[in-house]
Amino acid sequence: MPQPIYVLNGPNLNLLGARETEIYGRQSLADIETAVAARAKSHGLETVFRQTNQEGILVNWVQEARDNASALILNAGAYAHTSIALLDACRAFGKPVIEVHLSNIFRREHFRRRTYISEGALGVIVGFGPQSYLLAIDALAAMGKDLK
Amino acid sequence: MPQPIYVLNGPNLNLLGARETEIYGRQSLADIETAVAARAKSHGLETVFRQTNQEGILVNWVQEARDNASALILNAGAYAHTSIALLDACRAFGKPVIEVHLSNIFRREHFRRRTYISEGALGVIVGFGPQSYLLAIDALAAMGKDLK
Amino acid sequence: MPQPIYVLNGPNLNLLGARETEIYGRQSLADIETAVAARAKSHGLETVFRQTNQEGILVNWVQEARDNASALILNAGAYAHTSIALLDACRAFGKPVIEVHLSNIFRREHFRRRTYISEGALGVIVGFGPQSYLLAIDALAAMGKDLK
Amino acid sequence: MPQPIYVLNGPNLNLLGARETEIYGRQSLADIETAVAARAKSHGLETVFRQTNQEGILVNWVQEARDNASALILNAGAYAHTSIALLDACRAFGKPVIEVHLSNIFRREHFRRRTYISEGALGVIVGFGPQSYLLAIDALAAMGKDLK
Amino acid sequence: MPQPIYVLNGPNLNLLGARETEIYGRQSLADIETAVAARAKSHGLETVFRQTNQEGILVNWVQEARDNASALILNAGAYAHTSIALLDACRAFGKPVIEVHLSNIFRREHFRRRTYISEGALGVIVGFGPQSYLLAIDALAAMGKDLK
Amino acid sequence: MPQPIYVLNGPNLNLLGARETEIYGRQSLADIETAVAARAKSHGLETVFRQTNQEGILVNWVQEARDNASALILNAGAYAHTSIALLDACRAFGKPVIEVHLSNIFRREHFRRRTYISEGALGVIVGFGPQSYLLAIDALAAMGKDLK
Amino acid sequence: MPQPIYVLNGPNLNLLGARETEIYGRQSLADIETAVAARAKSHGLETVFRQTNQEGILVNWVQEARDNASALILNAGAYAHTSIALLDACRAFGKPVIEVHLSNIFRREHFRRRTYISEGALGVIVGFGPQSYLLAIDALAAMGKDLK
Amino acid sequence: MPQPIYVLNGPNLNLLGARETEIYGRQSLADIETAVAARAKSHGLETVFRQTNQEGILVNWVQEARDNASALILNAGAYAHTSIALLDACRAFGKPVIEVHLSNIFRREHFRRRTYISEGALGVIVGFGPQSYLLAIDALAAMGKDLK
Amino acid sequence: MPQPIYVLNGPNLNLLGARETEIYGRQSLADIETAVAARAKSHGLETVFRQTNQEGILVNWVQEARDNASALILNAGAYAHTSIALLDACRAFGKPVIEVHLSNIFRREHFRRRTYISEGALGVIVGFGPQSYLLAIDALAAMGKDLK
Amino acid sequence: MPQPIYVLNGPNLNLLGARETEIYGRQSLADIETAVAARAKSHGLETVFRQTNQEGILVNWVQEARDNASALILNAGAYAHTSIALLDACRAFGKPVIEVHLSNIFRREHFRRRTYISEGALGVIVGFGPQSYLLAIDALAAMGKDLK
Amino acid sequence: MPQPIYVLNGPNLNLLGARETEIYGRQSLADIETAVAARAKSHGLETVFRQTNQEGILVNWVQEARDNASALILNAGAYAHTSIALLDACRAFGKPVIEVHLSNIFRREHFRRRTYISEGALGVIVGFGPQSYLLAIDALAAMGKDLK
Amino acid sequence: MPQPIYVLNGPNLNLLGARETEIYGRQSLADIETAVAARAKSHGLETVFRQTNQEGILVNWVQEARDNASALILNAGAYAHTSIALLDACRAFGKPVIEVHLSNIFRREHFRRRTYISEGALGVIVGFGPQSYLLAIDALAAMGKDLK
Repeated sequence: MPQPIYVLNGPNLNLLGARETEIYGRQSLADIETAVAARAKSHGLETVFRQTNQEGILVNWVQEARDNASALILNAGAYAHTSIALLDACRAFGKPVIEVHLSNIFRREHFRRRTYISEGALGVIVGFGPQSYLLAIDALAAMGKDLK
Repeated sequence: MPQPIYVLNGPNLNLLGARETEIYGRQSLADIETAVAARAKSHGLETVFRQTNQEGILVNWVQEARDNASALILNAGAYAHTSIALLDACRAFGKPVIEVHLSNIFRREHFRRRTYISEGALGVIVGFGPQSYLLAIDALAAMGKDLK
Repeated sequence: MPQPIYVLNGPNLNLLGARETEIYGRQSLADIETAVAARAKSHGLETVFRQTNQEGILVNWVQEARDNASALILNAGAYAHTSIALLDACRAFGKPVIEVHLSNIFRREHFRRRTYISEGALGVIVGFGPQSYLLAIDALAAMGKDLK
Repeated sequence: MPQPIYVLNGPNLNLLGARETEIYGRQSLADIETAVAARAKSHGLETVFRQTNQEGILVNWVQEARDNASALILNAGAYAHTSIALLDACRAFGKPVIEVHLSNIFRREHFRRRTYISEGALGVIVGFGPQSYLLAIDALAAMGKDLK
Repeated sequence: MPQPIYVLNGPNLNLLGARETEIYGRQSLADIETAVAARAKSHGLETVFRQTNQEGILVNWVQEARDNASALILNAGAYAHTSIALLDACRAFGKPVIEVHLSNIFRREHFRRRTYISEGALGVIVGFGPQSYLLAIDALAAMGKDLK
Repeated sequence: MPQPIYVLNGPNLNLLGARETEIYGRQSLADIETAVAARAKSHGLETVFRQTNQEGILVNWVQEARDNASALILNAGAYAHTSIALLDACRAFGKPVIEVHLSNIFRREHFRRRTYISEGALGVIVGFGPQSYLLAIDALAAMGKDLK
Repeated sequence: MPQPIYVLNGPNLNLLGARETEIYGRQSLADIETAVAARAKSHGLETVFRQTNQEGILVNWVQEARDNASALILNAGAYAHTSIALLDACRAFGKPVIEVHLSNIFRREHFRRRTYISEGALGVIVGFGPQSYLLAIDALAAMGKDLK
Repeated sequence: MPQPIYVLNGPNLNLLGARETEIYGRQSLADIETAVAARAKSHGLETVFRQTNQEGILVNWVQEARDNASALILNAGAYAHTSIALLDACRAFGKPVIEVHLSNIFRREHFRRRTYISEGALGVIVGFGPQSYLLAIDALAAMGKDLK
Repeated sequence: MPQPIYVLNGPNLNLLGARETEIYGRQSLADIETAVAARAKSHGLETVFRQTNQEGILVNWVQEARDNASALILNAGAYAHTSIALLDACRAFGKPVIEVHLSNIFRREHFRRRTYISEGALGVIVGFGPQSYLLAIDALAAMGKDLK
Repeated sequence: MPQPIYVLNGPNLNLLGARETEIYGRQSLADIETAVAARAKSHGLETVFRQTNQEGILVNWVQEARDNASALILNAGAYAHTSIALLDACRAFGKPVIEVHLSNIFRREHFRRRTYISEGALGVIVGFGPQSYLLAIDALAAMGKDLK
Repeated sequence: MPQPIYVLNGPNLNLLGARETEIYGRQSLADIETAVAARAKSHGLETVFRQTNQEGILVNWVQEARDNASALILNAGAYAHTSIALLDACRAFGKPVIEVHLSNIFRREHFRRRTYISEGALGVIVGFGPQSYLLAIDALAAMGKDLK
Repeated sequence: MPQPIYVLNGPNLNLLGARETEIYGRQSLADIETAVAARAKSHGLETVFRQTNQEGILVNWVQEARDNASALILNAGAYAHTSIALLDACRAFGKPVIEVHLSNIFRREHFRRRTYISEGALGVIVGFGPQSYLLAIDALAAMGKDLK
């Protein structure tokens, strides 16, 4: 069995389902974790799912993933827009990184338009709510097979 | 059976597989069309797949989709970055629009960083090559069911 | 009788009355055409009224107007903000061009604040809904007489 | 009889007909006042017509109009480009405000491209010389009836 | 008894309680004046409270305060964002200036983000409605005693 | 008794009284804590007072305050200018947030002019030294009573 | 005898000699008026010397100068940087305008670098303190004779 | 004989000789076509010469040239400044592209300073009127021989 | 025989053929000089060919050309992007100036996109290597005859 | 007798009287030198008058002036806008520097609006043609006596 | 013996030697630590060498250094470009800070061009790989002796 | 013995020790030359040390260094910020270039923040006064040996 996929979540995502539900929906991060694990399993894949509010911990985890993960799904939340450190970690990861966001960041404040992470990611999926994560799992599963 | 999904493609996408294959891969747009139709069918969905080099024709098709389609997958190519007319058409569409790009536009020239379409789209998927389209089909299929 | 006034409409204006009626009102483009013709007739003037979603067709029509029209009323829609080609055509027209918009473009997104057309127009009328067109007709009728 | 329309004029408009006549024409502000009153009368409307070089007096008059006027036609001259105070007054007015300019401000210096007033106005009419005012009167008269 | 505190108010603040009450609340400027005087009295202080719509009059008053006031509370309204003349007057005042705003100007239009006054003020208090003034009075009363 | 007010302090504020005393004064953060508690007590309020140099810890604390605090006074120090994560946490807090700064940030380097926090705060108080905190306490105490 | 030269002074210049004397020197505006009159007299010229804090009054005076003055020396103070209305008045003046400033505005804050007045002035003299005015008088006296 | 050179012309170039002759000269596009063909023939080369006002048609023709042309001379007119789609097509062409303009675009409006096409062109020739085309023909003929 | 054409070369062009040959080719400046002279001679024209690394010397030479040259071909190298002095000299030259560059400056660093020289040149030819000079010679030879 | 005043002139000023006489007038630089010397003599002052097209020579001369001149009048021409080296030299001069320009640089191209020299100059005089120099001489003569 | 030099390293520097070795070289951070200690020892100096991925920890360490270190060598990695908090800590340090970077940050992405740290550092050394640290040690050792 | 190191100095550096000694220190350039030679000698290296105020001479010397030097230490002074010509010369040098500055340019005016030279340099050392040169010598000596 290959190494697991690290699914890392940044600041305030632990509040999912409890805040601004009209934007972020009613599902909690635990709900997403469950769904992600199930979807991964359906592809014969495993996931490690974590959340932190600290930029540096995210960097630590991305570094840890270098040895322990086959791919990275990263919802860096607000750090996506401000953290060059995370971008550098993603580039050093050397394996596929997929950036996801629950909301369509391009329809929000101007300062959410740009993400540093996207410059170090293979692909970006935004706006589908929790579904964004599942599509990322599918994308990783499909990688290498392409249009089959 | 619901209305089909319109999958619309903008300028130069007809050259897929023939140009810059190191960036865009070796699959032709016809290959993508076949794969998209198959994937849609697997969800019990139908697709209408078209390509044009003309901004105005894209606008026409998005308008046509108002009556004939349940959703829209739009790879507007370069027009994504320059066409407010397309943005307006997407907003008038009133049903889900998903913007896709084959390459990760955030890692290319500065003028490809911004897309007008994203401001009128539900979600955006970039960087997965032909897989971007299939993920968009999956996203539409999953819509309404969410994490089930 | 003098040459008619060309009244040219750009992308998505064919959807008038059907989309975003809280912004654009309930009148269709056909309603506007009728009203415009009536207003022109009240001044002893004739109008040619057309719509297209294609930038190049608009350019064609503005060029055609050089021989066939005495003046031009142009609602270029989104192309007003992106088309230098239309600006060039308007400048080559050599007779009065009036730019109109249904909505007050200065109260909308930032990218609608600037129009290229205005740099080639005699005057600009925005924000009055269908009335914008009728005021343009009146303005053309009044031209040459001034405050009489 | 309804309340009158306030027609307020900003700095340097008292010089009309005396300065830069190739740009602003030969009619004086008094000529415009007469024509405006006549046009209003033809619609069964009354006007109050004033000019001042002082930003604060313009603000005073717009405030005064809250109780005494049914609508506002505002040629704020250069203050259109620099006065947020006037914008705030217009927004507090709560009834229709039409911004007019004699010249086409979009063909002049860069700093005349943007007007704060337009963000608080219903509509904007620029470039028709004194005719700009008359079109504004007509627009107010037509309001509510629309295309009839 | 020390010299009074000048509390100066800029354009459109005389409309308080009458306009946009959802933003600015239902209290009139007279209500604020009364509350400010009472709060000042509770500290053994006196206030002079004025409003004008004219930038130049505000400058006059700030200059007058040089001889007659011990401190200045300035709600310059929209002039805060456009008046370098007021900034200069505040700097020439030589005694404490506190800038206040009723609304949180940092959550409004982009052009309200910057105030010139703040560059000449000791401190800035924004967003507390009429309470902003009372906090400014308290701040002046506390000055020199600090944390006691 | 209501829930306490969280008073959270960001990077380098633990150095207060020890560094750049000509700017920040001679009082230590402990002095401020004492004064804040006393002032709160005089209003029948309690405070929880903390400092950290870590952005993520601040986010944690703001999240913790959701359940345990009635309001938030936030001196985010330098993170005010760079942390969208903190802004998001403040918005998710759902109860009053007051941003304070000891110095007048608008008179310092250009990059201190803008704070993200202010976009999620009810009000902002800057430039009064330790007094900024006490005014914030007063503001919270006065909230709901307004000008009484 | 020719018409007099208008020497007009803007906001805060009435404080000269009383404020920031290290920047603006110890001479009062009255001192300057005396010196200016003497210098003009030495050329057989007369001056009208005025000061106001109000932008609109400055505009009034520049307009008045159209009939009554042969030239204009304008120290618009802070309005030099913000007043398009004054620029327009200067342009309408039609006779020589000289912009003067006591301090070297190019060595001060960024927002003092640009003056609107300079775009309507014949020449600009800055940085010489009261001497700036006298040089302007000399320049007007020399005009027409050139290097003689 | 090698494949012909495609000489493609964008919007409003069909008006040559009829509009703004002081800028663009008195020669019609047909005159240029004749001269271009003659010059090409003198090098033993053939040309295909076309004009369209539509961006998408230009893209079509550039794509068509991939199979049918040995080189491309492109006067994209106003689309040079706005069309990323054309840039992409030029890059996909894979053979020499020469951008030409009749006028010196660097001496005109600011928005004509930048061309997207130049980023995909081998060389650029501007400002020589019809001669720009002939120089481009010569350049293609000389290619490979260099300084001979 | 007419006056010669001055062909002036700026900084680092003396290194041609020796540096970065993949960009600039293998021909030395002497090779270009020879080819330019030959091409000029074929038109019955003479050339003066010089190179310097000093901006001021280039200005001197352009001034010298006023009396001694019929036209100017200027490859100002890096000074094209930074020298307003050279622009002024070109404008004072009063006869045709053609700006040439070996490489396509529009495909290089951002700061090479703008040239001051182009604002004072009749035409611009870039990207053709040494051929750029020969085309410039041809352009000068053709001038006055146009499409013949 | 004090040290002389250095009057240094930058690029293209040697062409005065010969080029663009409608802008710069008909007087040659020699005429100005004569007039400057005469004016200086009338104040009991001496001048050293030089011109060069080279930035570095200007720097040399400003350095030389440190030991040999009591003041500096600098018309750096185009280098005023591009030379930080000259600014540094002026600052190192340590005695009065007056920047002069013949034309009003604030009414010309955008890139002439800013001068580096002005940041190192005592005062700036622009727009008076040759008279600018004479006023500078007068200003230096008056220095120290002020309004006497 | 004086206090040691703190040598602090920011995010991703722990990966040295393992990632992007063509950019960062093959030496690990431990190798650098050893070399730094040896070099310091050769000057009779001691070093404390640490690395963290967390911005706040870096701030903690810089604060700790106030009491325990005589100088600071800081390779803040990506935080150099985003952390005002670190800048503030460096300024509060009050003893020499030297900023180092392994790579030449000025030849990389645009967002790496600016460092906040440099505004609080005595000196900056970039681009020499591990040697950058050793040069910093030497610089500190040489400080006070200067060119001896 | 290898080729010497060229140590080239730009404008105003010849004034070292004589001007602004609080910024640049009391050592003259000759002092630095002596120290640099001694330090080089200690590494068995030779130096050629020169200064000029002329940009073009610096370019000449960098070109000369191509044949005669093994490395280049360049303190281009103000030309570092304005000279693309020098950048090009450095790139053509093909051997190590080290940019040095005496002062920390990142703490000075905004226009000193960017250096063109740094884009062509191996490394950059700023802020150490004369020591900057010695560190550069050491860096060159250490090159190739790395951490030994």
